[in-house]
Amino acid sequence: MALLVRLKGFQKLATIEEAKRRLFDNLKIERKIVAVPLDEAFGRVLAENIVAEEDLPKFDRSAVDGYAVKAEDTFGASPFKPKTLKLVVGKEVKSGEALQVWTGNPLPKGADAVLMLEHVKRINNEIEVWTAVTPGENVSRKGEDVAKGEVAVRIGTRLKSHHLGLIAALGKNQVYVFEKPKVAVLATGNELVEVGQKPKEDQVFETNRLIISSLCRELGAEPIDLGIARDDEEEISEKIRLGLEKADIVITTGGTSVGASDLVPTAINGMGKPGVIVHGVAMRPAMPTAIAIVGNKPVIVLSGNPVAAMFGFEVFARPLILKLLGVEHESRPVVKAKLTRRTSTALGRKTFVRVRVFRQNDEFYAEPISARGSGVISTMTKANGYVIVPENREGLEEGEIVLVHLFDTLEAEGEIV
Amino acid sequence: MALLVRLKGFQKLATIEEAKRRLFDNLKIERKIVAVPLDEAFGRVLAENIVAEEDLPKFDRSAVDGYAVKAEDTFGASPFKPKTLKLVVGKEVKSGEALQVWTGNPLPKGADAVLMLEHVKRINNEIEVWTAVTPGENVSRKGEDVAKGEVAVRIGTRLKSHHLGLIAALGKNQVYVFEKPKVAVLATGNELVEVGQKPKEDQVFETNRLIISSLCRELGAEPIDLGIARDDEEEISEKIRLGLEKADIVITTGGTSVGASDLVPTAINGMGKPGVIVHGVAMRPAMPTAIAIVGNKPVIVLSGNPVAAMFGFEVFARPLILKLLGVEHESRPVVKAKLTRRTSTALGRKTFVRVRVFRQNDEFYAEPISARGSGVISTMTKANGYVIVPENREGLEEGEIVLVHLFDTLEAEGEIV
Repeated sequence: MALLVRLKGFQKLATIEEAKRRLFDNLKIERKIVAVPLDEAFGRVLAENIVAEEDLPKFDRSAVDGYAVKAEDTFGASPFKPKTLKLVVGKEVKSGEALQVWTGNPLPKGADAVLMLEHVKRINNEIEVWTAVTPGENVSRKGEDVAKGEVAVRIGTRLKSHHLGLIAALGKNQVYVFEKPKVAVLATGNELVEVGQKPKEDQVFETNRLIISSLCRELGAEPIDLGIARDDEEEISEKIRLGLEKADIVITTGGTSVGASDLVPTAINGMGKPGVIVHGVAMRPAMPTAIAIVGNKPVIVLSGNPVAAMFGFEVFARPLILKLLGVEHESRPVVKAKLTRRTSTALGRKTFVRVRVFRQNDEFYAEPISARGSGVISTMTKANGYVIVPENREGLEEGEIVLVHLFDTLEAEGEIV
Repeated sequence: MALLVRLKGFQKLATIEEAKRRLFDNLKIERKIVAVPLDEAFGRVLAENIVAEEDLPKFDRSAVDGYAVKAEDTFGASPFKPKTLKLVVGKEVKSGEALQVWTGNPLPKGADAVLMLEHVKRINNEIEVWTAVTPGENVSRKGEDVAKGEVAVRIGTRLKSHHLGLIAALGKNQVYVFEKPKVAVLATGNELVEVGQKPKEDQVFETNRLIISSLCRELGAEPIDLGIARDDEEEISEKIRLGLEKADIVITTGGTSVGASDLVPTAINGMGKPGVIVHGVAMRPAMPTAIAIVGNKPVIVLSGNPVAAMFGFEVFARPLILKLLGVEHESRPVVKAKLTRRTSTALGRKTFVRVRVFRQNDEFYAEPISARGSGVISTMTKANGYVIVPENREGLEEGEIVLVHLFDTLEAEGEIV
C-alpha cells in the first residue's frame, strides 16, 4: 500500500520536456507590436524584417583616407622603387593621376582603388607611391554591405549595437518591435516580511519578488509587483486574479509542494480552465514547480526557496518570456570545462549543479559549489554557471568535461587582449 | 628616403598593450559613489562590501514543506517497512513525534531533520514514514548561507538577480554603487547626415553615435550626445570642449588617420596636457585609433568606419568604462571553436577576425565572415564573436581550435534542456 502511494507520488512528476510541451501546447502565443524610435530600440526584439530599400553603400566609396587612383598605375611600386602620380582635383582620375579622398567619399570616376595616406608621400603636387594596390582595394563597393531588396536584419532579432548601426545605415530611424510582456510577480508565505521592515523572531525577508523581477527585466519583460500574500486561499486567489487582469504572465513563489497543502495550485484551479497542467517536475532543485493556464494566460508557480525559484524560472519562465517576446532561441553563453571534483546527483531527476568556471593556462575548469538546501542563495553568488546532469546518471566524475551554462561573467586570468 | 619615411610611419604604431598602458598610466581614476534602492540596483556596480550583520539564516529552519522529526526515529524506514510517528502541535518534538513545518519555518526544539511531505503518508494523527533521513537533512543551518561578519557580496560586483536576492535576504534595501560614467559622443565628417533626414547624393547616414551610445548603455555608462561636427578644427574643438565639461569620457568618430589631416587629434592637442598620447595602433581594424588625455579626462578618437569604431571601442573604451565603473575585469563570454576555413591576416597587426559560432553535434564551429573593408557593418550582424590573431601570425588554419569572444548570442542546435 505504502509502496503504491509512493510510486503514485513519483509518477506525478513530469519531465522538464513533458512539462514544457504541456505549457506550449496549451498556450496560444499572442504578441503585440509597437513602433519605437531607433535610439530607444536597444535590447528590443524586432517585429519586422528590415529590408534594404537601396544598395548599401549606394555608390562605390573609399573605405579609407587616401588617394583614389587607377590600380594599374601603382603596379610594381615599392619603398625602394616608388612611383609618382600627379595630384588632381575634381571628380575624375585619369592615368598617372591621383585624387585625395576621405573615408566614405564616392570613388571618383576613372579610379578603381584607393591608396592609404600612410603608404604615400606627398611632395607638392605629386605623390610618391610606395605600395601597389589591386583593383577594388580600399573601396567599399555599391551594395557590398547590403544589396537592395535584401533582408538586413531578421524579425525576431534582439537588437544590439551592430544591428542598430546597420538599420541606421539604411536610413530608418524607427522600427517595429514586439511589446514587452508584462509579468505579475507574487510572493506567498506567512513567514515573509518586506526587506527594510523589522522581522519578528520567526520571520524572514521576502527576496523572491526582487529576484524574479530582475530576471524579467534582464530578459526584456516588464515586471508588475503583486506584493506578498498570506497563506490564505482567498487572498492568494484575489492577487493572482489581479495579476491575470494586468499582465501576460503571472509568476508566484511559495505555497506549492507535491503532496498536501498546495495552496497556490488549489487557488488557481478555482479560477478557470485548464488550470494546473503540471505539478511536480523531475528536476532538482525546483521539483515542486507547477504550471497552470487560466484563460490563455500562463501562471508559473515557483518554489518559495530562492534557488529553486531561480531554476524554475530558468527552465520554464525564461523560454516562455522569450517566446512572448518573439525570440525563438536565446541560449545562455556556454563553455566546456573540466570538473575539478566529483559531484553526486539523484537518479530520476534532471539536476542543475551550480559551478564556478575559471580559466587557467588557457583551460577552463568548473568547480562545483556545495549546497545542502536549495534555500542557500549564496551558492548562486559563488557560482557563475550550471551543469545539467541527466536523469540516468548519479553524478559527474572528477576531470569530466562538462558543458556549463553561464549566468554570470567568467573569471579570466589576465586581460583579454 | 621613402623607405625611412615609411618605416617611421609604422614605428609610430603602438601595440594594444602599450596603448592601454599609456592610457591607464596617465589617468587618475576617480569614482563617485551614490546610494540606490535595492530594487533599482540591478546591473549597477557595488561600491561597498556587503557584510552580514547577523547569521543567515538566523535560526535553523526547514528547507522544505514536511514534518520535523528526530532523524534517528526514521532510521530503517522504507516503503516496505514504514515507521509510524505521532503528529504533535506546538514548538517541540520528542522521540516518536513529528511536527508539521513549512519551508522557512524555524526547526522545532528537539528536531534535527525534516521529512518531505511526499515521503510520508498522513493517517489521522499519525504519519507513516517511508524514507529515513539523516540528521540535518532538509534543514538550513543557522549561518549556513552567510555567517555573521562575513562578506556576502564584494565591492566591484556587477549586481545580478542572485546578488540582489542575497543582499535582500540580509535585510538591506539600499546599497552604495559607483556612479554611471558619463560618456560624451561626437561624430565628425562633412559627408554625414542624420538618420531620418534626406541625404544628398554624396552623403551617408551617421550611424556611429547610435552604435557607441548603445555600447555605453550596455556597459552601464550614460551616453551624452554631442551631435555631428563638420570637418572643421574650430567646430570639433568646441564640441569636444563641451563634452569634457559635461562628461567623464569623450569619444569621437572620424577625422583620424595616421598621416595627414588628423583633424581631431590636432584639435585635441590644442586643448591641454598631455593631449594625444597614442595615435595609431598595431591592430586591424581600428589602426587609426588615437587616445588623448585632457585635464585628467580621456578622449578616445575612433575611426569613422563603423566596424573599426566598434573594435576601437572594444579594445580601449570598454576597459576604460569598466575601470571607471569600478569593475576590474568583466570578460565577454568565450568559447573554444573549430575554424571552418582558413583565414589570412597581416603580420605586425593584432587582427580581430569576425566569426559566426554555431553548435553542431555538441561541437562548436567558428565560420570566418569575409569582409573587404571595415566599413561593412553587416559583417558584425552576421558574426556573433571575434578571434584575436596575434601579430606574429599570417592567419589561422582550417580546423584550428580558436578562442572566440562572443558579442552576441550563440546559435544553439535545439533547446538547452
